[in-house]
Amino acid sequence: MLISKASRFGVWSCAVTHSARLFSRSSNMAKSKFEYVRNFETDDTCLRNCYIVVRLDGRNFHKFAEQHKFAKPNDDRALGLMTRSACSVMEELEDIIIAYGQSDEFSFVFKRTSNWFKRRASKLMTHVASQFSSSYVFYWKEFFEDQPLLYPPGFDGRVILYPSNRNLRDYLSWRQADCHINNLYNTVFWTLVQGRGLTTTEAEDRLKGTLAAHKNEILFSEFGINYNNESSVHRKGTTLIWEKVYETVTKRMKLPNEEEKDVPVTRSRRRVEAYHCDIIGEQFWEEHPDILEDDNC
Amino acid sequence: MLISKASRFGVWSCAVTHSARLFSRSSNMAKSKFEYVRNFETDDTCLRNCYIVVRLDGRNFHKFAEQHKFAKPNDDRALGLMTRSACSVMEELEDIIIAYGQSDEFSFVFKRTSNWFKRRASKLMTHVASQFSSSYVFYWKEFFEDQPLLYPPGFDGRVILYPSNRNLRDYLSWRQADCHINNLYNTVFWTLVQGRGLTTTEAEDRLKGTLAAHKNEILFSEFGINYNNESSVHRKGTTLIWEKVYETVTKRMKLPNEEEKDVPVTRSRRRVEAYHCDIIGEQFWEEHPDILEDDNC
Amino acid sequence: MLISKASRFGVWSCAVTHSARLFSRSSNMAKSKFEYVRNFETDDTCLRNCYIVVRLDGRNFHKFAEQHKFAKPNDDRALGLMTRSACSVMEELEDIIIAYGQSDEFSFVFKRTSNWFKRRASKLMTHVASQFSSSYVFYWKEFFEDQPLLYPPGFDGRVILYPSNRNLRDYLSWRQADCHINNLYNTVFWTLVQGRGLTTTEAEDRLKGTLAAHKNEILFSEFGINYNNESSVHRKGTTLIWEKVYETVTKRMKLPNEEEKDVPVTRSRRRVEAYHCDIIGEQFWEEHPDILEDDNC
Amino acid sequence: MLISKASRFGVWSCAVTHSARLFSRSSNMAKSKFEYVRNFETDDTCLRNCYIVVRLDGRNFHKFAEQHKFAKPNDDRALGLMTRSACSVMEELEDIIIAYGQSDEFSFVFKRTSNWFKRRASKLMTHVASQFSSSYVFYWKEFFEDQPLLYPPGFDGRVILYPSNRNLRDYLSWRQADCHINNLYNTVFWTLVQGRGLTTTEAEDRLKGTLAAHKNEILFSEFGINYNNESSVHRKGTTLIWEKVYETVTKRMKLPNEEEKDVPVTRSRRRVEAYHCDIIGEQFWEEHPDILEDDNC
Repeated sequence: MLISKASRFGVWSCAVTHSARLFSRSSNMAKSKFEYVRNFETDDTCLRNCYIVVRLDGRNFHKFAEQHKFAKPNDDRALGLMTRSACSVMEELEDIIIAYGQSDEFSFVFKRTSNWFKRRASKLMTHVASQFSSSYVFYWKEFFEDQPLLYPPGFDGRVILYPSNRNLRDYLSWRQADCHINNLYNTVFWTLVQGRGLTTTEAEDRLKGTLAAHKNEILFSEFGINYNNESSVHRKGTTLIWEKVYETVTKRMKLPNEEEKDVPVTRSRRRVEAYHCDIIGEQFWEEHPDILEDDNC
Repeated sequence: MLISKASRFGVWSCAVTHSARLFSRSSNMAKSKFEYVRNFETDDTCLRNCYIVVRLDGRNFHKFAEQHKFAKPNDDRALGLMTRSACSVMEELEDIIIAYGQSDEFSFVFKRTSNWFKRRASKLMTHVASQFSSSYVFYWKEFFEDQPLLYPPGFDGRVILYPSNRNLRDYLSWRQADCHINNLYNTVFWTLVQGRGLTTTEAEDRLKGTLAAHKNEILFSEFGINYNNESSVHRKGTTLIWEKVYETVTKRMKLPNEEEKDVPVTRSRRRVEAYHCDIIGEQFWEEHPDILEDDNC
Repeated sequence: MLISKASRFGVWSCAVTHSARLFSRSSNMAKSKFEYVRNFETDDTCLRNCYIVVRLDGRNFHKFAEQHKFAKPNDDRALGLMTRSACSVMEELEDIIIAYGQSDEFSFVFKRTSNWFKRRASKLMTHVASQFSSSYVFYWKEFFEDQPLLYPPGFDGRVILYPSNRNLRDYLSWRQADCHINNLYNTVFWTLVQGRGLTTTEAEDRLKGTLAAHKNEILFSEFGINYNNESSVHRKGTTLIWEKVYETVTKRMKLPNEEEKDVPVTRSRRRVEAYHCDIIGEQFWEEHPDILEDDNC
Repeated sequence: MLISKASRFGVWSCAVTHSARLFSRSSNMAKSKFEYVRNFETDDTCLRNCYIVVRLDGRNFHKFAEQHKFAKPNDDRALGLMTRSACSVMEELEDIIIAYGQSDEFSFVFKRTSNWFKRRASKLMTHVASQFSSSYVFYWKEFFEDQPLLYPPGFDGRVILYPSNRNLRDYLSWRQADCHINNLYNTVFWTLVQGRGLTTTEAEDRLKGTLAAHKNEILFSEFGINYNNESSVHRKGTTLIWEKVYETVTKRMKLPNEEEKDVPVTRSRRRVEAYHCDIIGEQFWEEHPDILEDDNC
């Protein structure tokens, strides 16, 4: 079977003329002779005591969404798959304390004291990009039952360091503000196109230069839509954090001098939980005081 | 359906109490207020006029191979899938001139004058890692028909720069020498285990301290195996390069003052080709003089 | 006069054979043709919101001290010159909030919000190294009246970033702890050599493996020296900070409807002040609360 | 004497209240407790097999030149001092193969295989900046006999890597083309001001938009000056390289079975030599084939 696949690329084997023994000896020598090339690797250790953010962005996702018939302005299957893949990243990699996603992007925050992969930036970001991408394909059919995946998608990533809690929170606020602005625009835009029959160019012209208040007004006065009643997944994006959950199970136990009987046992474990709420204000952070570490450490 | 998936992570929506208009205005202001966080991104442009190598390595692939019942010492399905995924990377990303893979690793070489993604190291390596990983899952069932993929695998990557043709060739030679040493060892090891019934510990002890010549000798004298007749895919790994291929097709054409007729037309296009031959010596490079650019440019 | 100096290196001029006009035109074109080499410069911007520390170390100062007959274990002229040069750096460069020096090293701390030289690490460290070195030679004779400077000395530098106040204070504590350990050792060592006539080898042997307490004991019981009464410059090093000083001067002024008269006027200005006290504990920082900025900014 | 100097900065010593022994013990522990701050240093090793260029530029030298009454358009004393300082850098630091200077800048090229200071960029550039700056002050009075140095000058530096001989030569050509363009402009400008009595604004206006050919024409037709006869130091800048020089000395020797007599002995040593010639064309490099290393190494 391999052969039929391999023939997809033309395969040639080169003639081997030298004897096995001669070659073996020389190639052994060769390896040590070539090993100097390792010294060209550079150290890209992330500065200590800083939060490490890895952000992924979909590559050519506008076209990808078209080809896979994503619903407008938001496709819940696509958002669910992004969240599922992000969850896989959090469960597989160590030390991610919070992740935030919207549209075709997801940001992962490693704790400031993390020493995972010795804080090597290249390892951290390629691992996140790799695990996210393989998960996206792996879980595709759980979210897109009737829509086959046409080709393997790509994501690019970057690493950014934040020295203080304020900086990190401002980064997450920046991404959520971006989510809000884009989603409000897209909601009005597609309501005009789908509900009123405007062409995309007409809708664009209609929205040119409008402020947020105007867009809310259009939705409310023309379509009776209160933007704040729209789905929080779309308005706020998705925040993933670790939470302790407690389960009570019954275990058959035998204590000394007693008969065997069923005993209720409470166990705790960490689980990734998804939130679709405001993370710009104080409330979320006050309710989850364990996410951020103390600044002056 | 999304809901049943989403319930896998506990989802809560937070109460929204403020009016839509107030919020919108403040979050618009907010975005510009937060945008300073972009200045924390650092520039990681690769030094110009150097070859850019991105190498991927499978994460925990020892365990992954066990769980997916890879054949020992080499699984042709797994090697074929690695090559197929690497081919996808070459076809999707620009400016890769050669790729070399063996076992669970693959190296991709961008041409020294490449300006893809403005030579930003993070973009280059995450893109390669992402495209390779999504392809690995996407093409899995073409190579593993009867073996389902149990979970999404991960790969990590790194970037290394090489200023000269000599350095780049030494890098590729280093990887091929590594392939040779490992494959010779593994071949003898598994022949002792599978063919002679040694335990893995006994096989290890038997091979401790042996040179390449001894290993060849064991294979030949005890099992009648000439190592050089083993598959070149295993001994030499896989080298991918671009080659021009010519196709002759017939086209129905009508020239002025002539009747319509079938005309043979030759077209050329670039195609990724796989080689399993020595790339340490001069022959391969003399036969493919267009891969490397001139040093003094 | 220049000629006699220049002849120190052999000077040859090459024959110029082309006409001025031709050359000029071609060299103008040439410049734009060569300007691509600027793209090889890399961006080395320091991560924002971190303290930037530049530390200088004397190069071959052991030999330099010998050749310039520095007193043992401490030469007050040399320490004074180091401090004078550091003061010059603080006065010439912007945004240094504190500097700490001991022996032949000096550390300079730029405030975390500094944008001096766009936070380019190379600019910051070379400027500090340059200004310090030229000052060292410039002020030499103010401190070494009878000892001519034999050759221009060298210092090397490095840049280190600290994200939190705690990290920065620990850095400064590390340097002061180093000062203490070295000075205690050197004080006992040279007291044994100078006061008791031991050879340097004998003194070394005597001190091998001794703890701080033993060294204090030797000083006190054998020489009647209480180490804590030794000069604080030697025990604690030198800390430079900016302080506001107020001066009252008399100005001849004429107010409306009054006769001209002398009026006392109080002016404030920033001045570098030197401390030789403990900076490991809280007291120094409580007394100077303006040096460090708030962590969560 | 130190005291009178130190009083320039206000010096206070802090009260020490704890006992020597207690303190010593705690500070010894302290040092190891603080040593984690070393991990915040980052590795800035220069990519191997690349030429390392360190360029220095005078800081605020326009003002420095005014204050020290530099002659216009070129001051031979200042140029001589720059060259003398650069020579000191070459003699003190290892592995510099060529240096090029003009105006208030100097570039130093370390050989591509250099391992000096383990190729750490920060060490290389601060050392060059430091040695150059201390030399500039140290040798000042050899070049400026009647003009005292008013304050210690500063230079900033940067590091740039060049992978190929072509890139390095283009860098040096870029700097020499810059020298040519600036010097031609300055020569005409100051000739108009000094020889014709134009104000600097009038001279500026006169030269606005002129090409090199026009400037040559002005010099020749109005002042009878052939620019090519101007000093090559000004037109071409200064190139420093190492050359072997041979000296013949007579030594009093006694050979076996002969009488003692004077014997001529030829010794060779390396010496820095200064050139003021074109380094853009081939001739210079053909005459000095040993400066550059082979590209494909």
